[in-house]
Formats: sequence, C-alpha cells, structure tokens
Amino acid sequence: MIKKVGIASYGITKFSREDAKIESVLLKATKNLFENCSNLTQKDIDAVLVSTNNNSKYLSPILAEMTGIEPKIAHSVESLCNSGTNAIISAYSYIASGLADVVLVAGAERYDSPGQILQWDNSRGEFKHPIFWASIFTKSYKKTFSVKEEDLALVSVKNHRQAQKNPYAFSDKIYTLNDVLNSKKLTNEIRLLDCSRPCTGGASIILASENKIKEFSDKPIWITGIGQKTMSAGFTKTITFSSMESSAFAAQSALKMSKHQPNEIDVLEIHDAFSVCEPMSLESIGITEKGKGIDLVKDMISTNNSKINPRGGLIGCGHPLGATGIAQTIEIFQQLQSKAESRQIDNPKVGLIHNMSAASTSSTVLVLEN
Amino acid sequence: MIKKVGIASYGITKFSREDAKIESVLLKATKNLFENCSNLTQKDIDAVLVSTNNNSKYLSPILAEMTGIEPKIAHSVESLCNSGTNAIISAYSYIASGLADVVLVAGAERYDSPGQILQWDNSRGEFKHPIFWASIFTKSYKKTFSVKEEDLALVSVKNHRQAQKNPYAFSDKIYTLNDVLNSKKLTNEIRLLDCSRPCTGGASIILASENKIKEFSDKPIWITGIGQKTMSAGFTKTITFSSMESSAFAAQSALKMSKHQPNEIDVLEIHDAFSVCEPMSLESIGITEKGKGIDLVKDMISTNNSKINPRGGLIGCGHPLGATGIAQTIEIFQQLQSKAESRQIDNPKVGLIHNMSAASTSSTVLVLEN
Repeated sequence: MIKKVGIASYGITKFSREDAKIESVLLKATKNLFENCSNLTQKDIDAVLVSTNNNSKYLSPILAEMTGIEPKIAHSVESLCNSGTNAIISAYSYIASGLADVVLVAGAERYDSPGQILQWDNSRGEFKHPIFWASIFTKSYKKTFSVKEEDLALVSVKNHRQAQKNPYAFSDKIYTLNDVLNSKKLTNEIRLLDCSRPCTGGASIILASENKIKEFSDKPIWITGIGQKTMSAGFTKTITFSSMESSAFAAQSALKMSKHQPNEIDVLEIHDAFSVCEPMSLESIGITEKGKGIDLVKDMISTNNSKINPRGGLIGCGHPLGATGIAQTIEIFQQLQSKAESRQIDNPKVGLIHNMSAASTSSTVLVLEN
Repeated sequence: MIKKVGIASYGITKFSREDAKIESVLLKATKNLFENCSNLTQKDIDAVLVSTNNNSKYLSPILAEMTGIEPKIAHSVESLCNSGTNAIISAYSYIASGLADVVLVAGAERYDSPGQILQWDNSRGEFKHPIFWASIFTKSYKKTFSVKEEDLALVSVKNHRQAQKNPYAFSDKIYTLNDVLNSKKLTNEIRLLDCSRPCTGGASIILASENKIKEFSDKPIWITGIGQKTMSAGFTKTITFSSMESSAFAAQSALKMSKHQPNEIDVLEIHDAFSVCEPMSLESIGITEKGKGIDLVKDMISTNNSKINPRGGLIGCGHPLGATGIAQTIEIFQQLQSKAESRQIDNPKVGLIHNMSAASTSSTVLVLEN
C-alpha cells in the first residue's frame, strides 16, 4: 500500500538576471520556505534533494549545512529542464517507500546554466541551442495543422500578460501581438518573444507523509498522479515533430494513477519553453484534440481565462532550468489552496503540471489535488 | 508494507587511467550488465539512474538511448564520493514505493573528475584536495590512539594485495610495508600509497522488486538495511577528527533496519579513501572498539582473512567517484552469491557496504543478504 504524499509548503525567489552564486539562490528559496511554514524545524527534515544543472558538487549537503539541517538523504538530481519534477518524484518515492517522512526539494539555476547548451546531441551538428529543435517543431506544427505565425504568437501575448500578476516572474511587461511579431527574428521560425529566457531563480517545496504533514499544514495538497517517460536523448529520434510522445505517455500514466480524465483538470502548468510548445503540449496530454491547441489558447484569451499557465508560463516567468518544475508545482499548490492572490482561478480541485526536457525527449506529468 | 528489493545482476569495467568519454564508460558497464543477465531486456527497465560527478548533462537519457531503453524515470544523481550508494537507495525507493519494478543504476567517472576538487569548502583555505582532511584525520587518529605510521601503512599493504585477485582493479602490484613507507611523501601525514587514486571506471547494477526479480535471477541478493546521514558539507564542522559521526549514524540505522548486530557481518566493503579511513570506519560502524581498528587490520593480515575490502578497497581498486559505491555493492553481491572466484570469503550470509563523501561529512551504509 503506497502512503499518501502531500506538499506542505514552498519558498521561491524572484526570477531575474542576478549574478548570484547558486548556493545563495538555493538558500534564499529555502529561507523563504521556512518563513512560509512556521511549524517546520530543521530536525523534521529527513532528506534534502537539490535540483540543478549547475556544475557545483555536493550542493545538497551545502544547502543542509547553511540551513542547519542534518538530513539522512542528500544528493543532487539532474535531468536538464525537468530536473525539478524528477527531484519531486524522487522525494515522493522516499516518502512512499518509508525511507523518509519529510523531504525538502530545492531547485536553483543561474542565468548562464550549462544545461542550456546541448553539447551531447550530435544530431544537431553545429546547432547546440534548444532554439533549433523549437524551429523544427514550429515549422512542422504550422505545416501539419495550417497554423500561422500570428496564431503561435498569441501564446506569448497571453503568458506575458498572465506573468504581470506573478510577483516572482522575470517579465514585467505586457506585449501586444505586434510586439511579438516584430520582435527580433532568431531563426526562420522563432522570434525573441517566442522564447522562454534563461534566468537566475530558485524554488523549494516540502513534501511529507500523510501522518506527518498535519504538523506543518492544515491544507496540504496531495500528489495523486505521477507519470514520466524518456523516449531518447537526441531530438531527431522523436517519431514526429508535431506531437510529443513522452508527454502523451507521462500524461496518460499520471491521469490513470489519479483516476482522472483530461477534462477534469481545472488548472494547468504547461512547459511552454517556446510558443509552439504550449499548443503541442495541450494536445499531447489530451486537453484538446490534435491541431486544436491554438483554438484553446484563443478561447482562453477571449474569455479572459488564465487556467493554462496562470503564473505566466516559462515564457512569462523565465526558465531557471532546475527551478522550473518546482515553481510550476508551487503555482498549482497555491491555486489548489486558493492562495494564488490576483492569479486565483475559480475554485480549482484538480491541477496538472507538465515539465519536459530537450524537445520533449523526456517528460514528467504530475496531478495534484486538495 | 515495504516491498522487498533485490539486486539481480551487475556490469563493470576495468578501472584504469583511460581517457574515455563518460558516455563510453557508462555504456561499457551497462553492456557488460546485459551480458551477465541474459533474461533482461530493455523493455523490462522502468528507470535509469546515472551516478557521476561528471559535468555532462542528461546522461541518463543518453545512456538509455545508447542501450535502447525507454524508461519512465531517468536522471543523474550526485553526492561526490557516495553518489553510487545514493543512486542505489533512490532506486530502492522507486521500487519500494511502487513507481518502478526494475531499475538500472549506472555509475561512471573519469580520472579527471571535477568531484576531486572541493571548491565549495571554504574552511580549507587554499587546500582544495581531500588529502588535507585526510592529513588532519591521520594526525588526530595517530595521536588519540597512539597509532604509528607503519601501522596505518598496513592498510595499504593489505588492500593492494587483495586487489591482485580483482581483475577490474586499477592496481596490479603488491607493495611491501617498506614500499608504502618509502613512497612519495605528499603531506606530513600522508604518502602516495596511502591514497586511493583517481581513475576512469564504470559499474552498473539492476535492482528489481521481489515479484519481478525471479525473471532475471535465481539467486538474487536482498537489500535489507539502509542507513544514510549528512552532518555537514565542510569538514571542519565535524565534531571529532578521530571518528566518523555520519558513518556511525548510517551504520546504526542500516543494522537496525536489517535486524543485525555488527558481529553478524561476514564481509565488508569499507570506504578506504586513505589508509586512516579503514580503521576509523571499522570503529565508527561498530565492527571493533574505538582505537582497535588497526589491531583488526593486523589480525586480518596474520590470519590471511580478506573479509574487509576483499576486492582491494578504494586503495587497491582506484576510486572513480560515481562508480565506487556501485562497485562496492557489486563485490558484496558477488560474495553473497558465492561467485567472487579467487576472492571468495567462506560462505558469507550478511554483507555490509560503507560509502562516504568528503571527510565523512556524509555516509551511506547498506546491508545485503542472500
């Protein structure tokens, strides 16, 4: 029998271009967590997992020492852009297996993260930056579903606008459709404002077992669905460039585990690393039909509904790789606790987090419930 | 109820100074694992965890792609020198929690690993290499327990000799006591042959659930005890320089979980990063009394008993950081299966692995049984 695992609290930093040490970013997010969770003491914490692409070693014991924690389990987790949700699921498994009762997961990245350069993917030739897979995906998606540049640009307009209500977001500007369409052309298919931007940021959460979590929270949020899939490492191994196989698999697994249908999801964090990723992801995880992702985005805009990426997505918030999956989880946590302030969706019961790496060669989907 | 988790098979490479890519080392150890486990197919594997200090990112999906595995879970784990046992315990928790049935753990390191330079430990001043904590430990241990340089040198003599029977060990030489005492003096307290040496090497194992493991092994070895502890990151935070607090805590936890006493352990892998570490570890984990570690080493030598570090320890085998904890676990696996060839101990039933990082600021202890 698997123990029930919940999220008790969180800490976060402003996402910025600050030239801060990785240790400082981890510390800042974790200090904020202790401030947000008054009953939590250092002695309660059995494990400290750090999620990052930073090259520094032994960051979990370093964070533990800085914050006065002497955990049993302490190590770093890396899987590029979905390091954060990998660490969360690892924390889940430590608790569900009985090896830990309370786990701190802290993610952080600097704006110059080495995870942004995909040196290992030899299929790219000289093109080491994610923008090259994003360009191929965009070209393929536009052609397959007769989608135009101005359709995809709406994702950026929407998510930048939603980020205005998120005090921790990197972006503090509203952009019009024309702003996006006139922003710097980086490749034939992608403009500057179609991209999530590298930044410095940290995010941390506390997970705890059903028995222990009552000590720290009177309104914990439960992890009820988990799905993960790795198809490959290199993006040319993906079968299709207009859908995301690993995201589809991960979503099916997570929804099955949580016993929910896609139409029962009230609020979603979607990994919009580039504009095209939002409609492709929405389709791959079954929220809408193939080719209908942009219609859903347009519908959200016209009805002023911000249930898809309420915090502003990666495009609005910035993308500090190791922190992103944790920041996404924090947003759904806040929404389900009805504590998302001006971003609050109307009474959500079930939330979903979609976090992926490297052209969706791997994906994580989590379902949370209150 | 926690599911029973066992080790089904393993793969290993020769430890050497080869200038090989980290991906090649991981691949080589994992190919050897598939050769050793004829019933195992790629489709069986739910998770691929890579243990390394290498700066390359996304190594788990890369290893998965190279070997034709499409796992659910895939990420890297780093905790300096005990990355390997951290990854094994993470694999255990994925299985025990029900998120996976079969997990591949692959560890690898290059001789020039960035994990060897402890840049984060500001208490070291200009001394970034582990030899500086080892020197302080050696000085303190010798003074506290009236131990001489020639006593500690016996650890190196013993472990180099035992490594002769290990075809994968880095060292292929026997050293006399005089050889060790006349080897290059690196600090006031430490000579060259007192040190485990950096090298290139890989080691991988397959863990599986009680139900699934029968498909791959008719003689699985079970993980019955797990203990981990992190006291700090910087070595000057340790309370004493002549014992290892984190190792003591980890051993107590692992022995309690496995319901064994220290005197019931038949074969041990001890993290002898430097000569002094072997007696200090044996004392800290309760195999012998404080200050009596060297007497035990002498006793092993005089009775020709190789139950402590039968594969040659880190001093004889070399120390490829991310692979070490896994190679230690493989040795105990082979011993408990009675398949350790010329290194075989007489009929062992219970084995223990001790793996630590950075002056024993963190430690892992595992108990295995057949």
